[in-house]
Amino acid sequence: MVAEQVRRNVTPVRVFAVRDGSRTARSDAVATEEPLEIRAQGPDQEATRVAVTMRTPGGDFELAAGFLFTEGLVAADGVQRVAYCDDLDDEEQRYNVVTVTLTEPFDATRLSRNFYATSSCGVCGKASLDDIAVRCDVVPAGFTVASDVLVGLPERLRGAQRVFDRTGGLHAAGLFEPDGTLVSVREDVGRHNAVDKVTGARVLAGDSPAEACLVVSGRAGFELVQKAVAAGIGSLVAVGAPTSLSVRLASQAGLVLYGFTSADRCVRYA
Amino acid sequence: MVAEQVRRNVTPVRVFAVRDGSRTARSDAVATEEPLEIRAQGPDQEATRVAVTMRTPGGDFELAAGFLFTEGLVAADGVQRVAYCDDLDDEEQRYNVVTVTLTEPFDATRLSRNFYATSSCGVCGKASLDDIAVRCDVVPAGFTVASDVLVGLPERLRGAQRVFDRTGGLHAAGLFEPDGTLVSVREDVGRHNAVDKVTGARVLAGDSPAEACLVVSGRAGFELVQKAVAAGIGSLVAVGAPTSLSVRLASQAGLVLYGFTSADRCVRYA
Repeated sequence: MVAEQVRRNVTPVRVFAVRDGSRTARSDAVATEEPLEIRAQGPDQEATRVAVTMRTPGGDFELAAGFLFTEGLVAADGVQRVAYCDDLDDEEQRYNVVTVTLTEPFDATRLSRNFYATSSCGVCGKASLDDIAVRCDVVPAGFTVASDVLVGLPERLRGAQRVFDRTGGLHAAGLFEPDGTLVSVREDVGRHNAVDKVTGARVLAGDSPAEACLVVSGRAGFELVQKAVAAGIGSLVAVGAPTSLSVRLASQAGLVLYGFTSADRCVRYA
Repeated sequence: MVAEQVRRNVTPVRVFAVRDGSRTARSDAVATEEPLEIRAQGPDQEATRVAVTMRTPGGDFELAAGFLFTEGLVAADGVQRVAYCDDLDDEEQRYNVVTVTLTEPFDATRLSRNFYATSSCGVCGKASLDDIAVRCDVVPAGFTVASDVLVGLPERLRGAQRVFDRTGGLHAAGLFEPDGTLVSVREDVGRHNAVDKVTGARVLAGDSPAEACLVVSGRAGFELVQKAVAAGIGSLVAVGAPTSLSVRLASQAGLVLYGFTSADRCVRYA
């Protein structure tokens, strides 16, 4: 595995801070956001462009591998190598394109065609309603975590966030053992990216992310639940609210789902 | 314009509330989340599938029109009618597909092909890095709002949120006059959808959303700034943080961008 290019995840900016009507010029830091194009290929295939996501640099290989995994496009043991695309003339974009080489041929027909796709936090980008459900064969372990451990997880996650401290603008995702031991944490401007990075880190390390408890700093919408289910995650713990569809999917898939988790309380939805 | 189907935006669920170690079964409400497939067609064209987004029902026509507008796919005066797709056999999905009929032929070649696309909050779904920039000819008015008015806008937005009160899980976007008068507010599980709805409401009413101040309940990432720029919005006020790319785009486009806006302070980034 080629070493990943180290890029800054915080960008300095000049701002005017306004407080009680007075304006002060000062330096500030914002979370770096740049596009990452993810490509996939089999051993002897040309690379297919799979997706572009706006991400915070750092953990690019994890993000690419995790994305393909949680979208049900590759098995946990199906990644052979990940590398930046070195055939780009554009120096600025060179480290914004990552190619994942798989152990098996990549089935490009699983990608939707002829559509544009958006944003929002959702399944945006799927070509039609029929494409929404990720195909996955994994059945989540569906375990629960002791409630006194559970309510402490968001604080542990927050304590492990490094870039948030400097910018106040990043989502985080962490994997924990059922007893509350932190396995790993990743940050990103995109909350789904943070999940893909932390899951991808396990995939690249040759470990299954299953049997773990996934904690996210934001809400638990449909697509986050879908990614958790596809990864075989046992429990999903969100600081924020779930949605109707995420509760339904979690119930169907056997994923234990908690929301509004804070120091002294949480709500179990599925 | 056909009347929009009224759907529930809140879904009842049974939950276990955990507090201080004790567990209580009770009823709760979560924000409804369902997929919306957006199609576009010219007067004598077949409809093209443009995108699928996970949204909270309500304002579907506004969302579809606003999405096409803020993605630079149609001009503000280019929408002829919006309707649910009535040729679907699936009763459950009938109100999850909306077709926007344009006054001019829809140029489907502006849509990217052959890719999958994701989620995250970002440009997800664009086929390659080259597709990221939305083509738009609008130049934002770039006006500033008096700082005492500005810092009060998030609270006004919050006060106008109806569904959040019941679920704690929705983003909001509001359009305000430069003097702080609320024009309209919309809520959605997806923060970009909330912006598309509030912008689309103006488009469907035959008004330009330009010259307005857009206030969002969350952060201001690249794609939100891009949507604001495409809509010709003058000022974007975020409760949360911006990113490096959103600051850069706002500066280039002449959009005035505020972040971390609360009762007594805010930060001007561009």
